[in-house]
Amino acid sequence: MSEKRDKAIAYAHKNQDRFLEELKELVAIPSVSTESKYQKDIQRAADWLAKELGNLGAKNVAVLPTAKHPMVLGELPTTQNAATTILVYGHYDVQPPDPLELWETPPFEATVRGENLYGRGTSDMKGQLIAGLKAIESIVKTDHLPINLKFIFEGEEEIGSPSMSEFIRKHKDNLKADLALNLDGGIVSADLPTISISVRGLAYFELRVYGATSDLHSGMFGGAVHNPAQVLCELIAGMHDAQGRVALPGFYDHVRPLSAEDRQNFARLPTDDTYFLKTTGAPALFGEVGYSAVERIGGRPTLEINGLYSGYIGEGSKTVLPAFAMAKISCRLVPDQDPGEVHQQLRQYLQDHAPKSVRWELGQFAGTPASSIDPHQPQVQALAQAMERIWKVKPVFKREGGSIPIIGELQQIMGMPTILVGFGLPDDNLHAPNEKLHLPTWRRGIDTLIHFFYNIIEAQQG
Amino acid sequence: MSEKRDKAIAYAHKNQDRFLEELKELVAIPSVSTESKYQKDIQRAADWLAKELGNLGAKNVAVLPTAKHPMVLGELPTTQNAATTILVYGHYDVQPPDPLELWETPPFEATVRGENLYGRGTSDMKGQLIAGLKAIESIVKTDHLPINLKFIFEGEEEIGSPSMSEFIRKHKDNLKADLALNLDGGIVSADLPTISISVRGLAYFELRVYGATSDLHSGMFGGAVHNPAQVLCELIAGMHDAQGRVALPGFYDHVRPLSAEDRQNFARLPTDDTYFLKTTGAPALFGEVGYSAVERIGGRPTLEINGLYSGYIGEGSKTVLPAFAMAKISCRLVPDQDPGEVHQQLRQYLQDHAPKSVRWELGQFAGTPASSIDPHQPQVQALAQAMERIWKVKPVFKREGGSIPIIGELQQIMGMPTILVGFGLPDDNLHAPNEKLHLPTWRRGIDTLIHFFYNIIEAQQG
Repeated sequence: MSEKRDKAIAYAHKNQDRFLEELKELVAIPSVSTESKYQKDIQRAADWLAKELGNLGAKNVAVLPTAKHPMVLGELPTTQNAATTILVYGHYDVQPPDPLELWETPPFEATVRGENLYGRGTSDMKGQLIAGLKAIESIVKTDHLPINLKFIFEGEEEIGSPSMSEFIRKHKDNLKADLALNLDGGIVSADLPTISISVRGLAYFELRVYGATSDLHSGMFGGAVHNPAQVLCELIAGMHDAQGRVALPGFYDHVRPLSAEDRQNFARLPTDDTYFLKTTGAPALFGEVGYSAVERIGGRPTLEINGLYSGYIGEGSKTVLPAFAMAKISCRLVPDQDPGEVHQQLRQYLQDHAPKSVRWELGQFAGTPASSIDPHQPQVQALAQAMERIWKVKPVFKREGGSIPIIGELQQIMGMPTILVGFGLPDDNLHAPNEKLHLPTWRRGIDTLIHFFYNIIEAQQG
Repeated sequence: MSEKRDKAIAYAHKNQDRFLEELKELVAIPSVSTESKYQKDIQRAADWLAKELGNLGAKNVAVLPTAKHPMVLGELPTTQNAATTILVYGHYDVQPPDPLELWETPPFEATVRGENLYGRGTSDMKGQLIAGLKAIESIVKTDHLPINLKFIFEGEEEIGSPSMSEFIRKHKDNLKADLALNLDGGIVSADLPTISISVRGLAYFELRVYGATSDLHSGMFGGAVHNPAQVLCELIAGMHDAQGRVALPGFYDHVRPLSAEDRQNFARLPTDDTYFLKTTGAPALFGEVGYSAVERIGGRPTLEINGLYSGYIGEGSKTVLPAFAMAKISCRLVPDQDPGEVHQQLRQYLQDHAPKSVRWELGQFAGTPASSIDPHQPQVQALAQAMERIWKVKPVFKREGGSIPIIGELQQIMGMPTILVGFGLPDDNLHAPNEKLHLPTWRRGIDTLIHFFYNIIEAQQG
């Protein structure tokens, strides 16, 4: 096995310039998903990936239309029985390049400066996609792969993956796998490899509070009726207690507590409180008492106000007593909270606390549970060992504060756990001008993925 | 004296058709103050009034420019020593007529239908202006007036009287009077004459709460920093106590309590709680415990949220952790609250309660104290007796919930009290299509004002 690994690694090293050229080729296709003027480029990027899968010898390669942008599918099956199946996920769409004038080199002409490759999508995530594909190429061109690989590449990640849920349901049988390898992750610093083992869920609500049937003059009516903006604020104020905990009834009932090991992992992350103070520019950090910032973000649920509106918000003054007030409210959820239950908890809270002098309505926009994978699971350990082999340091297991719809959906619809990995860095300027990819880290990533697959193969062969 | 009154009343009755024609003439001038396309009409209306003052024999008649629309001044001095001086106030500007398609007859062609005259400004307040001028004409054409009258008519009331404060300061000596008679009031129903003896003051603020230096991703940072929208809501929630009282420190220290007589006056008003429920359409009334709605509006101070903004307020969801949140907050003040003190009370409250995890800024847009006149003052009694004579019912003394800048400014700058009176009705469709004036009430108003002036004269001679 060691010899096979060496051959694949040697292939990767020998071909690294070509790999870079191919990445540049993919970056040159401006596959921006938000704007319809890039529709043809979206299709070109999907076709480029389908061709790439063909070059790897993949079967059943297809570019399937959705309501919006196409999905690219493919399979590299093995003839071996009872082999592990891994579903490799990536997205080929990118954020718009604006503001263009802030780019030092054109966003769609990937340019090497120093150790970095600059261009839109180099880090998020065409670079990560190519890393995965080139690791696989390095194996299949030098060896027979005794595991099953399946591929799903979408073109809608940057617009919230609107077609993904329905697509997964429809292609459930084709997508079946033991594990998803989501290449859309990142590492916390160039010298500390990272495996993301959970993402938070999301339950997003809109609360509207209604008072009088129309806006009133605050002089002629101020004092007669309950101001819905005031009521909304009072309701929101009651949603947290003095310890920064969420005060919805039963909110923490199913929250999985952080283990000692979880807390050790959090403590290893370089993103300490000083980091968050500097990054956010806030006068002070704040949150649930008893947890560090990184624990609160990755390991604890939150309730945030995402938007507030009522009455007059223009310049100067208008003496209006508003007829209604609105808040966008979202909860980030951790394992094992249920978004439907959280919805009921918020509804119960409002029933218990909203005064009779107003009417209220609660709408829901999203409800995705958190997803997580056990860091002791063999496939996660396979990746951890691969990382340690390359970096000479044990990787840190990270819990992500954000929610990645595809991870939640694979968990919910297919019961499939996801390992989230990638080799972008926090300062890669994602979604911003001068996005870049750190090439030494990227090359380590390709080697890591080669070892990951061989670790899986070895474990399978026992 | 009785004979003189009779002559003046007879003159008014004899000329009532001409009075109506002159009102129609003034309504026909579309003196809309908000839109610059009516600039010439504004000037025409000012000139029309100057000419009208000339017809009354007024001296020092002038149409004086301001930064925006002209002021009309004039005087009817008496040679008698130690005579009472009354400053008659009115505004000749009107609200825009839109939406035009909802008018049954053209807004600037005043049309009689049944007992009403329909047209923009018939009630607010060209009708009231003409009532005042025609009461005076009825006296000066049949008698010598042994009191001093001064006139100030503005063209900016409907846009908030931006030039008034500076104008009063500049013309302080010319405008000196014992009392202002502001004709811009109304009565609560056609069978219940009303004298407004106070208006509330206004202190208007904008509160901004800042957290991180820019909007953050609510997943990647939710839990790390204090959400400024949440902090704003918590601060606002603390501004009222459970009894609906304003919780700023010292807020009620100088509030003049309602006397038994005040409360009897409030109880006489037909606008009871059922009225406010129906008018506002709110599910229930709400306010400071221990007071009726009309008492809370006219006699008690309030703190209202006039506007709220933070983060994302469009359709659907955006997972933003906002960098700032804003509220427009205004207090309606009663005698003897000081707007500057209220500003300090709000600032103190924020200093005491805002957490260190946010920054905040407080701006102020307006600060006008409440104004009031003692209903036992002889001139108020002169008006009350005149009303009782015509209506055969004692007038009700009303305290207005709104704030009328000119009343506050005359009080503040000149120390001059104001009697606010007028003969419009609550259903006159002010600022709306099909504005109308109830002609029988209007004619009673002219007779009332004739008696008012004679009562003043009698008291002076008495």
